[in-house]
Amino acid sequence: MPQATAPCHADAAQAALADDGPAGLDALLHPRSIAVVGASDNPDRIGGVPIALMIERGYTGRLIPINPKYATVQGLPAFPSLAAAGGPIDVAIVAVPADTLGSTLDDAIAARVKALVVFSSGLAESGEAGKALQQDLARRARAAGIRLLGPNCLGMMSFRDQVFATFSPAPRAGENRVGNIAVVSQSGAFGAFAFSLARARELGMSYWVTTGNEADIEFADCVQWLARDPGTQVILGYMEGCRNVAKLERALQAARAAGKRVVITKVGRTTSGSAAAAAHTGADTGDDAAYDALFRRHGVWRAGTVEELFTVGYAASVCPLPASARTGVLTVSGGVGVLIADEACSTGLDLAELPKAAQEALLREVPYAGPRNPVDITGQTLTTPGLLERTLANMLGHGDGQAGYAMLLFFPAAALLGATIARKVVDSLISAHACHPDRPLVVTGLMQPAYRHAFREAGVVVIDDPSAAVRALAALAFFAQASDAGHA
Amino acid sequence: MPQATAPCHADAAQAALADDGPAGLDALLHPRSIAVVGASDNPDRIGGVPIALMIERGYTGRLIPINPKYATVQGLPAFPSLAAAGGPIDVAIVAVPADTLGSTLDDAIAARVKALVVFSSGLAESGEAGKALQQDLARRARAAGIRLLGPNCLGMMSFRDQVFATFSPAPRAGENRVGNIAVVSQSGAFGAFAFSLARARELGMSYWVTTGNEADIEFADCVQWLARDPGTQVILGYMEGCRNVAKLERALQAARAAGKRVVITKVGRTTSGSAAAAAHTGADTGDDAAYDALFRRHGVWRAGTVEELFTVGYAASVCPLPASARTGVLTVSGGVGVLIADEACSTGLDLAELPKAAQEALLREVPYAGPRNPVDITGQTLTTPGLLERTLANMLGHGDGQAGYAMLLFFPAAALLGATIARKVVDSLISAHACHPDRPLVVTGLMQPAYRHAFREAGVVVIDDPSAAVRALAALAFFAQASDAGHA
Repeated sequence: MPQATAPCHADAAQAALADDGPAGLDALLHPRSIAVVGASDNPDRIGGVPIALMIERGYTGRLIPINPKYATVQGLPAFPSLAAAGGPIDVAIVAVPADTLGSTLDDAIAARVKALVVFSSGLAESGEAGKALQQDLARRARAAGIRLLGPNCLGMMSFRDQVFATFSPAPRAGENRVGNIAVVSQSGAFGAFAFSLARARELGMSYWVTTGNEADIEFADCVQWLARDPGTQVILGYMEGCRNVAKLERALQAARAAGKRVVITKVGRTTSGSAAAAAHTGADTGDDAAYDALFRRHGVWRAGTVEELFTVGYAASVCPLPASARTGVLTVSGGVGVLIADEACSTGLDLAELPKAAQEALLREVPYAGPRNPVDITGQTLTTPGLLERTLANMLGHGDGQAGYAMLLFFPAAALLGATIARKVVDSLISAHACHPDRPLVVTGLMQPAYRHAFREAGVVVIDDPSAAVRALAALAFFAQASDAGHA
Repeated sequence: MPQATAPCHADAAQAALADDGPAGLDALLHPRSIAVVGASDNPDRIGGVPIALMIERGYTGRLIPINPKYATVQGLPAFPSLAAAGGPIDVAIVAVPADTLGSTLDDAIAARVKALVVFSSGLAESGEAGKALQQDLARRARAAGIRLLGPNCLGMMSFRDQVFATFSPAPRAGENRVGNIAVVSQSGAFGAFAFSLARARELGMSYWVTTGNEADIEFADCVQWLARDPGTQVILGYMEGCRNVAKLERALQAARAAGKRVVITKVGRTTSGSAAAAAHTGADTGDDAAYDALFRRHGVWRAGTVEELFTVGYAASVCPLPASARTGVLTVSGGVGVLIADEACSTGLDLAELPKAAQEALLREVPYAGPRNPVDITGQTLTTPGLLERTLANMLGHGDGQAGYAMLLFFPAAALLGATIARKVVDSLISAHACHPDRPLVVTGLMQPAYRHAFREAGVVVIDDPSAAVRALAALAFFAQASDAGHA
């Protein structure tokens, strides 16, 4: 065997490790050159979408259209095959019918492509013949040291590098913020929904990966790789099932050890859901209670709804972890304080009373205040000079060297819908947060967009629904505890 | 005793019934003349806000400022006392300090005012002396046949009549839609939050009442009155406690008998929440499981969060009640279908399979479709002429004389974020709904604002979060079942 094949051997050796980790995913998730097989001049077609997006957003690596019918595609020089393009090629996006995947793989092997993103459907999800074809492709790719994302997936995006290896129309509807939240989804359509939701909420994303049929790369591999990505702080996952639970556990361990916060929506928790999952991808959703326990053991917050997945993800992307679950609740309304106290109690937050001295100080100023916790300073007092500031200082500092609450939740009722005193209230909260940047500060309720923006710029979390806000704080306390347990 | 006092006697007789019903609430909730005691020229002051709002929004009844210091207030002729204004006066809004409430009540009795809305605080919530004062006022008002809302409340609003008997700044931030949703809240600040939330979500409201200390008029009285209001279809309630459970039960019975849908957030379900409620209004939140059972018995949907209160309220305000809990789920994405199936199963919806013939018809057109339920036609097929329409017809009609699903939930993944096929999808859904207006149709997910608007105009419900959408459908099924039980 000629020496020229040696790189393939080295890759094959690497591939032997692949079942156990994210080996080879660097090329996929940080590609310096991307080919598109089945490249199209039409930016609306599957083979045209990724090229159009990467040209428009300024991907700085080499972009290589592959199509024997054209000399150029969308203005870029095109090649008849991967082998003809000249290497190195980190990623080849494959947008061809299932029955030509075999020859595309031959070409990719010849061109020493490092990773394939396979959009094609009609594989394992379509019956026995497709399953056999998929297994054969996966076996041959692995033998050649090529990692494979999909098939039957929507691809991946890396927002720092402007990599759009996807045919989802979602990113074309507008640009999203770059940030520290990664999304990993076994479902492409869920992924597209999640992407759009993240953009609508102005959440900053690092990576977006959909794993589809998981012929090679699994959900767990992506988590394991992201655990080492310095640009990712939060991993949001959508799971239907898991073939290799031990690998998933190792990935979650790695993520926790690296200080990442992982939030997962694992579906198939009911008989209807399991049946729907089996019909969808053939996934065995497994024993739901076992997943519950597994997630808890590894410090993963399990989100029951998409809403919760993103709300918790948002808080986790912004906030430091609190020193404890001791939470102060400040309101200008007793009523919603009761609702918040209920939710806090249900989620295990500790609404310890304000120390007596601080209570007495508050009551001296506002005899009709609710001084314990929730602390209700009532709406009228917002115009009293310094009262809000003193109360915030008392709650965050407690005075006399006592540590204040580890987290603070503020409900302004309708005070931030007006203009007169609202700006002062906003500034006071932002100042308090600047003095105690280690304490997560969440504001819940309605407010004018300008105040929402000011809070977000200052690292103060804004969550509209009070119950959702409490759950986000509970998740932060959970991550903090899990982090301690992980280091113990 | 001169004959002239007879109306007072008649009112007193009516007042004897008051403990047991909403007698006398017509004057309060449908007032033809409104006086404001402590009227102010300054539209930002407590005594100025209601006058400014009613002038601006065009209240058509008589508006009577009471203030001995001025000849006119905000351009209206003012009077030194209620008695001097000349009757009849349906409602007097009272914005004076607690220690002058006694003389105001004397004046109201002299002027034969029918109902008082008392904003003043410093009564029962402030200690024993305030409690004694409140009891004395309530006793004297009752003896005179005057109904009393509050004290320590934010007042009430009737949106059909442009009555703004409130000093909440919330309505000044913008106009809201007039519609069939009434809000009744024991907490003023919660009420203000709820009002702002309803406006932000463009929900149409009929009434908004906050009951505060409930010296006379209780939460249950308002529900009882709204049960008979033809303009109200949905009653959203926020409760901390209830002094007279039998009265609450009668009110809920009346609401169910009248076909109203009642959704209540009852707080104080945990020890922390109960303690916070006791600190807030002194309310005894009672046995939570007993409230759960009471609500279930009377067909009340108990909402755990503000989000759910409003989402269920919105669906209930738009949709007819379904014939059963048989729900069809249509997606262009298997993944979110699994999530939806989970939630549907948890909430007791019946995701019966599509009849075999309809499944086979779909598979003939789209071999890789998910034909059962959730029905997954996959994204690519949205461009196939007529496929969506045929699938909708199959799901709503089932063909061969079989009744289709009683409710339909559609998840379009990212299809409604684009433009090309999105408008056709929207039109197809609206047409299907027009053919089956008796079947609640909910679309969940993200979409362009124009499509959201088109759906809402056509009576198609839009709920962003899939899990929240499922809960709304479950609530509709619950109301339908409760309605049947109520009529049995």
